[in-house]
Amino acid sequence: MHVDAIVQDLLGRQDEILDRLCAFLRLPSVSTDPAFIEGMRGAQTFLVDWLERMGLSDVQLLDGGGHPAVYGAWNGAPGKPTLLIYGHYDVQPPDPLEAWVTPPFEPTIRDGRLYARGASDVKGSTAIALETIAAFLRVRGACPVNVKVFLEGEEETSSPSLRAIVEQYGDLLQADGMISADGARAHPEIPTINVGSRGIVEFEVSIRTADKDLHSGRYGGAVRNAAHEMARIIASLHDEDGAITIPGLLSAQPSVSDNARAETARFPFDGAAFVKDVGARAHGEHGFSIREQLTLRPALDVNGMWGGYTGVGGKTVIPSTAHTKLSMRIVSGQDPDQVSDALKAHLRAVCPPDIELTIGDPGTGSRAFNLPTGHPLVLAAKKVLSDATGQEPVLVRLGASIPITVIFQELLGVQTLMFGFALPDEDIHSPNEFFRLASLAEGLSAWPRLLEQVGEYSADEFRSMGTATEKAPT
Amino acid sequence: MHVDAIVQDLLGRQDEILDRLCAFLRLPSVSTDPAFIEGMRGAQTFLVDWLERMGLSDVQLLDGGGHPAVYGAWNGAPGKPTLLIYGHYDVQPPDPLEAWVTPPFEPTIRDGRLYARGASDVKGSTAIALETIAAFLRVRGACPVNVKVFLEGEEETSSPSLRAIVEQYGDLLQADGMISADGARAHPEIPTINVGSRGIVEFEVSIRTADKDLHSGRYGGAVRNAAHEMARIIASLHDEDGAITIPGLLSAQPSVSDNARAETARFPFDGAAFVKDVGARAHGEHGFSIREQLTLRPALDVNGMWGGYTGVGGKTVIPSTAHTKLSMRIVSGQDPDQVSDALKAHLRAVCPPDIELTIGDPGTGSRAFNLPTGHPLVLAAKKVLSDATGQEPVLVRLGASIPITVIFQELLGVQTLMFGFALPDEDIHSPNEFFRLASLAEGLSAWPRLLEQVGEYSADEFRSMGTATEKAPT
Repeated sequence: MHVDAIVQDLLGRQDEILDRLCAFLRLPSVSTDPAFIEGMRGAQTFLVDWLERMGLSDVQLLDGGGHPAVYGAWNGAPGKPTLLIYGHYDVQPPDPLEAWVTPPFEPTIRDGRLYARGASDVKGSTAIALETIAAFLRVRGACPVNVKVFLEGEEETSSPSLRAIVEQYGDLLQADGMISADGARAHPEIPTINVGSRGIVEFEVSIRTADKDLHSGRYGGAVRNAAHEMARIIASLHDEDGAITIPGLLSAQPSVSDNARAETARFPFDGAAFVKDVGARAHGEHGFSIREQLTLRPALDVNGMWGGYTGVGGKTVIPSTAHTKLSMRIVSGQDPDQVSDALKAHLRAVCPPDIELTIGDPGTGSRAFNLPTGHPLVLAAKKVLSDATGQEPVLVRLGASIPITVIFQELLGVQTLMFGFALPDEDIHSPNEFFRLASLAEGLSAWPRLLEQVGEYSADEFRSMGTATEKAPT
Repeated sequence: MHVDAIVQDLLGRQDEILDRLCAFLRLPSVSTDPAFIEGMRGAQTFLVDWLERMGLSDVQLLDGGGHPAVYGAWNGAPGKPTLLIYGHYDVQPPDPLEAWVTPPFEPTIRDGRLYARGASDVKGSTAIALETIAAFLRVRGACPVNVKVFLEGEEETSSPSLRAIVEQYGDLLQADGMISADGARAHPEIPTINVGSRGIVEFEVSIRTADKDLHSGRYGGAVRNAAHEMARIIASLHDEDGAITIPGLLSAQPSVSDNARAETARFPFDGAAFVKDVGARAHGEHGFSIREQLTLRPALDVNGMWGGYTGVGGKTVIPSTAHTKLSMRIVSGQDPDQVSDALKAHLRAVCPPDIELTIGDPGTGSRAFNLPTGHPLVLAAKKVLSDATGQEPVLVRLGASIPITVIFQELLGVQTLMFGFALPDEDIHSPNEFFRLASLAEGLSAWPRLLEQVGEYSADEFRSMGTATEKAPT
C-alpha cells in the first residue's frame, strides 16, 4: 500500500486526531511544579494507553529518578533501520493565568489556531508523530522502519534525569537514528532542516579582595575593590567590537567553511530587523553576518554579575567580593573541556595574583550538535520537504543548545533529525500559546513520507552512510 | 578662679558623673528604628532637663521634621567668642543582641571599660562636654566663652533633617566656631587634632542595551550585553595601579603640598598593617603613602554593581540592563559640582553612543572639610594637648566624610574642631561597644582647659584669626 493512502487516512481523520490532541492538551503536565503531579501522571497514563492501543510492544515508563519517560516499540521491520521517535509530554507553567484569552488547559480553536499550553511546544508535533505510527500500523499493519517511541517528561526543566535514563536503558534505546518532534520550523514558507546547534560551557567566577566589605571613607584609594577587578576581568573577554579575545580560544577556534557560509546565506534572515525587534544593538565579531555570528561562531556572555551594595540609596562600601556567571556557546569542532580550560587559564592570567579567584564549574558543558549534511536522515527529509513544497530545503543551524541531541549522540551514537512543525511565533513559554491547524495537516502529510523514505534504506545502508558522514561540517 | 579648680571639681565627682552618664546610656535612643521612639523621647527629656538644671537659657528642641536637636545657650561672656558645642544623643541599633556580653542598655563596667550602646559613640564624649559647662557654671558661675549646646538626634541616620534645622534656626545658631564631642582620637598615646576630612560625591549609573533580557543561544554573539558594557565603563575609571584616569578630573586635581605630606608623615601609621588587618590588598595611586592615599588624595569606588541573573544556578540570558553605584571621596580644593560634571562627562564619553545611559545624581555631594592649621581652635587645642601630654599634637586628616562639619561651614560659616575622647578600637556600631573610664578622666581634664584657652581670645581676635586662615591647606 502506497504511503499516499496513509496520508489520506490521516488527513481524513483530522477531527478525530484533533479531539485526541485536545484530550492530551487538557492534561496539565507541568513538570517544574509539584502541584501539577496529577497532570504529569495523567499524561503518562494517557500516552501509555495510546501506545498500547496502537500496537506498540514493551510499553513502559523509563524511570531515571525524576519524571519518567514513556516508551514503546515496534520491531516488525527486520533489516530496516530502527529509529527513536522523540517527543516530550511536559509543558511550561501557564503563568500568568490572567493573560490567557481562554484557559491554558481548555484547548480552544480561534482563526485556525489551536490555543492551549503545550499546543506548539510540543504536544502538537508529538501527536503528529504518534498518529503517523498508529496510521501505518492500523492501515498497513506495519511501519516502514522499526520505531522506538521515547517521550520525555522533563524537557522543560532542562532534562535533569535524561542522562540517567539513557544510561540505564541503553540497551532498550539502541537505534540507528532519531527523529524528534521537537525543534520548530525556522520559517513559515521556506522548508528548512536543522543540521546543527551550538554547544555550551558554563561557569561561575568569584573573586575576593578583602575579608569583608570596607568603608570607602576609611579605605578608599588604598585598597583593591572587588567590583573594579571583576569589571577588568569581564572587560578582558572581548574587544571593542564584541569579538572574543581569549588567546587560548582564538588559536583553537575552528574556521568557517565556504560551504557553511553559503548554506547560511541561503536562509532569508534580516539580521538588522532581528536585532531591532528586541531593541538590541548589533555588536559582534567582524567579518561575519549576524546569522553567521549567531550560528557558526562561538559567543561568550556574562549572564549575571554582582558585587557590593545593590539596594536602594547609597552605601559607601568597597565590595570585598564580586561574582559573575559566564556562559559560552561553542561551535562544531570545539571541545567543551578544552574551551573550559582555555577560559579558566585566561581568567587566572588576567586576575591579579594577589586576589582570591574561585571558578565554579558545574560540569554541564556540552558539545555543539552537528548532523552531517550527507546523513540519510537529512537526505530523507530533503526529499520529503522538496516534494511537498517544490522548493529545495535550506539547511539551518540554531544558535541555542539542544542537550537531548548531544546526550543521545554521546551515549548511544545516535544522530537526531529535528522534524517538528511548530513555527517561531507561536508564543511558546508565554500566555496564549497556539499551534496552527494548517501545521497539523502539513505534519500529518510529511511524517508518513519521511518514515517511508527512511524505510527505503536497509539498516546496513543507513548505518554505513550515517557513519561515513560523521565529521565536523563547518 | 583658675581652671585647675574646675578640673579638680570634675575629677573629684567622677562617680556622680559616671552615674549620670549611665542614666543617659540606659535610654535606648536608637534613631533609625521607630520602635525606639520612647527611647528617643526619653533622651530628649533627659537632656532638656539637664541643660535647664545646669543653668542654660533658651533650652528647647529644634525641629527640622525628623528627630529634633536639643539646644541650650549661655551668653554671659560678652566680648568673648561664642562656641557651638556639638554632640549627638542618638545611637546605633544594638543588633545582634545575642552577641552582647551584658545588655546594650544596661551600662556595665568591666576592666576599666564602660560597656553600653552609645558609650563611645558618642554619649561618653557628649557627657564630658556637658559636665564641663555645668562645672564652670556651678563652681565659677561663668563659662570662659559663650556656649550654644547643639545635640543632634539623627547623626546615626546620616543627619537627614540637619540642614533644615540649621537653615530654620540660623539666627539662634550663629557662632564663631564649633567644638564637637564627636570625632574619635586617632591614637591612644599620641595627641592628635583632626584638621580635615574628605568630601563626597555619589552617583548611580544605569545602562540599557535592549528592551528585555535576551536568550543567549538565540542572540549571543550578535548583540551588546549590558554587563559587558558596564564592565568596560567601570574598567575605564582607573589604571592598573588603581589611580583615577578620568581626564577632566586629573586636570583639576589639586596638588599636595610638602607641608601636608610632612604633617601626614608625623602620624605613626603602619599602612601595610592597616590593609592587612582586614585581609585587603594595597592598591592605589603611585607616589603616595597609604596614609596620603587615604587622606590627601581622592578615591573613586564602585560601591555596588549588578546586572542579569544573580540567583542560584545558571540562566543563559544576555542582560539588557546593568547598574552601578559610584562614590568619590574628594579632597580640599575640589568642587563637588565640578567633580560631578567631570565624572558625568567621562561616563558619557566612554559609553558607546548606541547605548541608553542614565546617571542618577542624588545631589548629596559635599566638599572636603578643612580646618586651617592656624585657626584659633587648632591653636587652643594644640596648647591644651601639649600641656597635658608633653608631646606636640599631630595634625591628622580623615579619609571619611563628616557631613555636619560641612553643613555648619556652608550654612553658618562656622569651623569645627573635633575634640572627642573615643578611641578607634571601641567597637562602635558593633556589639559590646565600650568607652574607657580613663578617657572619661582625660576628657574631663582637657575640655575645661580647651574652653579656658579659647576664652583667652576676644571675640574679635578669634574672628579675625579664623577668617585670616580660611584657605585651602593641602
